[in-house]
Amino acid sequence: MTGRPNPHAAPLPEPSTTPETGWHCGHFFYRFRREAMATPLNDQCIKQFLQALAPSESEMPERLSTYWISGHEVDFAVMVMDPDPAKVDAIHQSIMAPPLGQFIEGVWSFVSLSEVSEYVPTIERYRERLIAEGSEPDSDELNAKVAAYERRLPMMNEQRLRPQIPDSPSACFYPMNKSRVPGANWFTETFSHRNEMMAEHAQSGMAFAGKVSQLITVGVGLDDWEWMVTLWGRNPEYLKEIVYKMRFDLASAKYAEFGPFYVGYRATADEILNHCKVGSAT
Amino acid sequence: MTGRPNPHAAPLPEPSTTPETGWHCGHFFYRFRREAMATPLNDQCIKQFLQALAPSESEMPERLSTYWISGHEVDFAVMVMDPDPAKVDAIHQSIMAPPLGQFIEGVWSFVSLSEVSEYVPTIERYRERLIAEGSEPDSDELNAKVAAYERRLPMMNEQRLRPQIPDSPSACFYPMNKSRVPGANWFTETFSHRNEMMAEHAQSGMAFAGKVSQLITVGVGLDDWEWMVTLWGRNPEYLKEIVYKMRFDLASAKYAEFGPFYVGYRATADEILNHCKVGSAT
Amino acid sequence: MTGRPNPHAAPLPEPSTTPETGWHCGHFFYRFRREAMATPLNDQCIKQFLQALAPSESEMPERLSTYWISGHEVDFAVMVMDPDPAKVDAIHQSIMAPPLGQFIEGVWSFVSLSEVSEYVPTIERYRERLIAEGSEPDSDELNAKVAAYERRLPMMNEQRLRPQIPDSPSACFYPMNKSRVPGANWFTETFSHRNEMMAEHAQSGMAFAGKVSQLITVGVGLDDWEWMVTLWGRNPEYLKEIVYKMRFDLASAKYAEFGPFYVGYRATADEILNHCKVGSAT
Amino acid sequence: MTGRPNPHAAPLPEPSTTPETGWHCGHFFYRFRREAMATPLNDQCIKQFLQALAPSESEMPERLSTYWISGHEVDFAVMVMDPDPAKVDAIHQSIMAPPLGQFIEGVWSFVSLSEVSEYVPTIERYRERLIAEGSEPDSDELNAKVAAYERRLPMMNEQRLRPQIPDSPSACFYPMNKSRVPGANWFTETFSHRNEMMAEHAQSGMAFAGKVSQLITVGVGLDDWEWMVTLWGRNPEYLKEIVYKMRFDLASAKYAEFGPFYVGYRATADEILNHCKVGSAT
Amino acid sequence: MTGRPNPHAAPLPEPSTTPETGWHCGHFFYRFRREAMATPLNDQCIKQFLQALAPSESEMPERLSTYWISGHEVDFAVMVMDPDPAKVDAIHQSIMAPPLGQFIEGVWSFVSLSEVSEYVPTIERYRERLIAEGSEPDSDELNAKVAAYERRLPMMNEQRLRPQIPDSPSACFYPMNKSRVPGANWFTETFSHRNEMMAEHAQSGMAFAGKVSQLITVGVGLDDWEWMVTLWGRNPEYLKEIVYKMRFDLASAKYAEFGPFYVGYRATADEILNHCKVGSAT
Repeated sequence: MTGRPNPHAAPLPEPSTTPETGWHCGHFFYRFRREAMATPLNDQCIKQFLQALAPSESEMPERLSTYWISGHEVDFAVMVMDPDPAKVDAIHQSIMAPPLGQFIEGVWSFVSLSEVSEYVPTIERYRERLIAEGSEPDSDELNAKVAAYERRLPMMNEQRLRPQIPDSPSACFYPMNKSRVPGANWFTETFSHRNEMMAEHAQSGMAFAGKVSQLITVGVGLDDWEWMVTLWGRNPEYLKEIVYKMRFDLASAKYAEFGPFYVGYRATADEILNHCKVGSAT
Repeated sequence: MTGRPNPHAAPLPEPSTTPETGWHCGHFFYRFRREAMATPLNDQCIKQFLQALAPSESEMPERLSTYWISGHEVDFAVMVMDPDPAKVDAIHQSIMAPPLGQFIEGVWSFVSLSEVSEYVPTIERYRERLIAEGSEPDSDELNAKVAAYERRLPMMNEQRLRPQIPDSPSACFYPMNKSRVPGANWFTETFSHRNEMMAEHAQSGMAFAGKVSQLITVGVGLDDWEWMVTLWGRNPEYLKEIVYKMRFDLASAKYAEFGPFYVGYRATADEILNHCKVGSAT
Repeated sequence: MTGRPNPHAAPLPEPSTTPETGWHCGHFFYRFRREAMATPLNDQCIKQFLQALAPSESEMPERLSTYWISGHEVDFAVMVMDPDPAKVDAIHQSIMAPPLGQFIEGVWSFVSLSEVSEYVPTIERYRERLIAEGSEPDSDELNAKVAAYERRLPMMNEQRLRPQIPDSPSACFYPMNKSRVPGANWFTETFSHRNEMMAEHAQSGMAFAGKVSQLITVGVGLDDWEWMVTLWGRNPEYLKEIVYKMRFDLASAKYAEFGPFYVGYRATADEILNHCKVGSAT
Repeated sequence: MTGRPNPHAAPLPEPSTTPETGWHCGHFFYRFRREAMATPLNDQCIKQFLQALAPSESEMPERLSTYWISGHEVDFAVMVMDPDPAKVDAIHQSIMAPPLGQFIEGVWSFVSLSEVSEYVPTIERYRERLIAEGSEPDSDELNAKVAAYERRLPMMNEQRLRPQIPDSPSACFYPMNKSRVPGANWFTETFSHRNEMMAEHAQSGMAFAGKVSQLITVGVGLDDWEWMVTLWGRNPEYLKEIVYKMRFDLASAKYAEFGPFYVGYRATADEILNHCKVGSAT
Repeated sequence: MTGRPNPHAAPLPEPSTTPETGWHCGHFFYRFRREAMATPLNDQCIKQFLQALAPSESEMPERLSTYWISGHEVDFAVMVMDPDPAKVDAIHQSIMAPPLGQFIEGVWSFVSLSEVSEYVPTIERYRERLIAEGSEPDSDELNAKVAAYERRLPMMNEQRLRPQIPDSPSACFYPMNKSRVPGANWFTETFSHRNEMMAEHAQSGMAFAGKVSQLITVGVGLDDWEWMVTLWGRNPEYLKEIVYKMRFDLASAKYAEFGPFYVGYRATADEILNHCKVGSAT
């Protein structure tokens, strides 16, 4: 990589912080520092909180959604997506800036990029899979299915790269790795075996269509885990059900390592302040 | 899961935070921040503490029980259950709100849902198990046993979903996972093998009927461990005995991974203040 | 365990926090918070410290011993035993109460029960072991040895349940588990194999008779480790020697998992204050 | 090593803190302590911050580059290289000195040395590898390739020991070990097998020539991980891509253990203050 | 161990905190708490710092050496040895006493004893090893080598038990365990195999005679790791080289588990204050 000029190489890409595909994604989890709060937040801090989560048009990232979080460790979470990493991080910096930052602790975060995973079947691989599953090659039925997939795929990839946040009332968030321990090393498996396991895994998810939406973003090289999973559920019970069901898929059962899980509920900045009893916008 | 319309799917469920079965459950563990207490809690804080644990009728969750906890890490614990996750978390937020929150630290918590586990035998599976254990098919004895189970099951499931808290003086709390390491992977075992191991495990517990009551709630997708175990003991010695005995069951010995253990003693808010010597309600 | 009435069951035991056998045991490890000490402790705090470790008769637990601890993490330790768990924990709460608690941090603790381990041979098993080791069944020599054991056993068990604290100048404290990893799973071994390994382990200890005394208390179901080991040494060198020697016993070498180790020196409350240079009782 | 005089030994090297080859390298990661900031940094602190990152000529280390970092844990990072370890550490001490140090927390750091790895092929090994890959021994083509490598090698090694920091806008930083677990023990592999795996790994990197530059420094004996990886990317997406691609190389897939990952963006001291909203140089 | 009187036992040793062989050893690692330092240390604190590291004759331990430490976690380290554990710990307590202790945090420490390891060959084992390596039994050459070892051994053991601290400018410090995982369990290996591996390991070290001096002290039963390694290097590069080389020895590659590594540079108390920019002795 170092200092080896290659005359046949393509011209160097322009330096940029904007990904060629996909967006930067930030998941931020915060706790109100009650140990420092002799009184509820004053008006200046409340105003800063509300403005940080409703930035001006020029500072507004492409996606911004907020949740209150169950349990003692985290009070609220913010999920941000944008092509510009500085714009994503600016939301975090706006929350933490003086004076509000005195009363807030960043508990956990995850930095990732949206992407179309290598396991999303291309049109051609989709056709082959259907044939492998018993479809008649070149039959009208097969061709119709493939054509439908071809129409669907751009929309699905758009949702993977630049997702619309569904208005489900609940969500859960967790990072994961694929394990590399002796006897369960995902990265020494062949692509076709990994692909097969991921197809089974996707199948499990499809049973929850309409109940749960998911977004997988990639943290490899960027943060401490390889992937970040965001699940939005029309009922928190479905979040439990889908994760439990998927845990038996080989891709999870044998190869998945999980980090912290956070479950939360869609809420505006104002609703977060009220739920957490730290002051309110009057 | 994403964007694949399914014309044959059932109509989408209404968005809700109330589980279709079971209740939300919160276990919260706190420490008094003596480092910030030059004096005992003042009257305002004591009043807030007592009120947080005795909320008004509209804010009162379905279940609420409190314990002082042995050891240096945690001073007291609160266990809450309700169909509404916001109502469960509101108890926590009431304790942490200013000004009392200056003097209290959330040390650990667990967010879960009550459920009827897939290993609870249906009537039909119960019958099959008895036959497998030697009962004569269709005999009066078998039929009587099955009928008794059929009468008992609704009450038992009610206790699993919406438990009455027994008035035992001691309790212990701990989370657990089923392991997925090579050589001891619960999630790659067949259902029938897992079921058999869980039946043996249940048998171990039955020896403690009347001495220990248990509640298993599920945290999969919601918190960092898969299950939360709550054991109420008529004597703390029984808590040690049951956990020790169960540790030799294959389901535990080979497959269980345990998190922190906390042992505590049933106490009112006032008794907690007195035991912890941080002030008292006069 | 839940809601299954058993007409043949013995009458339910009375609810109690007093164990039927054994005592509650608390090991508490503390650090002086020098970060909060612009000056040495004032007279009020010193008085509180001395009184907390010399409680009035009604609050005095059955056993109470104190140590200063080597190293940066812990300054002093308190070991308490009593049939009443509230009395054990009250010592801790007295140390942490305002205002002294501002200057003290609980660093580690362990909650356990004293017990007679299942590996302590009964009279009958003792006889069998001697025979297995070559003694002539029914010989006078064998009978004499068994009779001696029978006389010794009550005293030994008394020491296990309600130990006298020896006046050795040094002690070490550490918790342990028996491992359950694939390839070294203590809990899937047969009782007879475990028993044999524990006998070998006991033999290792006997070589240190008069040099080291030990107490094993059980934390299963009560705290994060299964057992707590307390070793009192007439010289700290013996503590190193016995732990090193025992590490080669199969019960340790293959199956033991260890937590933190603390080494300390017997000291009165006053000596602790002096050693730690945080003020003195004048 | 101790006290064994060896009359045939070379004369003892002069005591020195300057490595014979390579430079000391420090990676420092910091967080602004918003909990202590009722207001933005005052002029004195801002001046200290700017001066610490632009030291006088005599205190200026050979290399110094600065980044703002994504996520909640770290706000900015400083990378320093110099033959003198005190000069490297002085940059850190200048940032932390009173009064600025009140508002800054060192979150993570890594201490290492630059080196030419034992896996960098010598001229002779390079020739052998080409022959092993099919080149005709002593052919003109082979000789030309070897001669080119011979010309290139000093420049490449210079970049390994005393690298020029590229002006890429993004960078990621992470430490790593080679594993020593049973079944995947790098250190019990033969040199030739390790060398072969490292050559494959280098090959993966070459695909990113012009997109990503890397620096590997060694922490063995100096810090908690064996190696520190610094990757500079012309686009943050390339950082994700190269780390993902390399994870499938056997040297990584089977043998690599990774520590924390931080991703950041090249920024001046002034830009860091602005991005983090903690004050600005006016 | 408990209550089994043994009439044939040697008389009990006198209670003492002084080891029969070897000294107590304390390694202490500290950080200046810049978060609490609005200004540099005042004269009183500087005086306390200097006096703590230059105690009066009666409080002076047998060995005391000080280092500044690279990286963000630790600023300086103190290594102390003495027959009296209270004298070792008193150095730590003097540093932490009010008011200086407000500005210093103990980050890590290790409590150990110096010893002559069981793997140091006796005269007889040394002779056997030479014969096993090909020496002619009873030859003059063999006898001369053995005689030389016999003359050297007391001095070498003195250095192991009561070492002179070399005036090398750099040092590294780290604790280690021998692993007990299935497949790499040091403690289930035979003595002769362990001895052979330790001899190979010693051989690796000898290549660094004059460049690196080492001291191994034992923490078994006293602290969280089994051994503490102190390496003094005439150049920090040698520290990296020796640890890297030794990592390939089977005793390390397969069986060693390492804790934190700290690298530091010999410095007086005054030099530490200057390097850390926290005030200076005027």
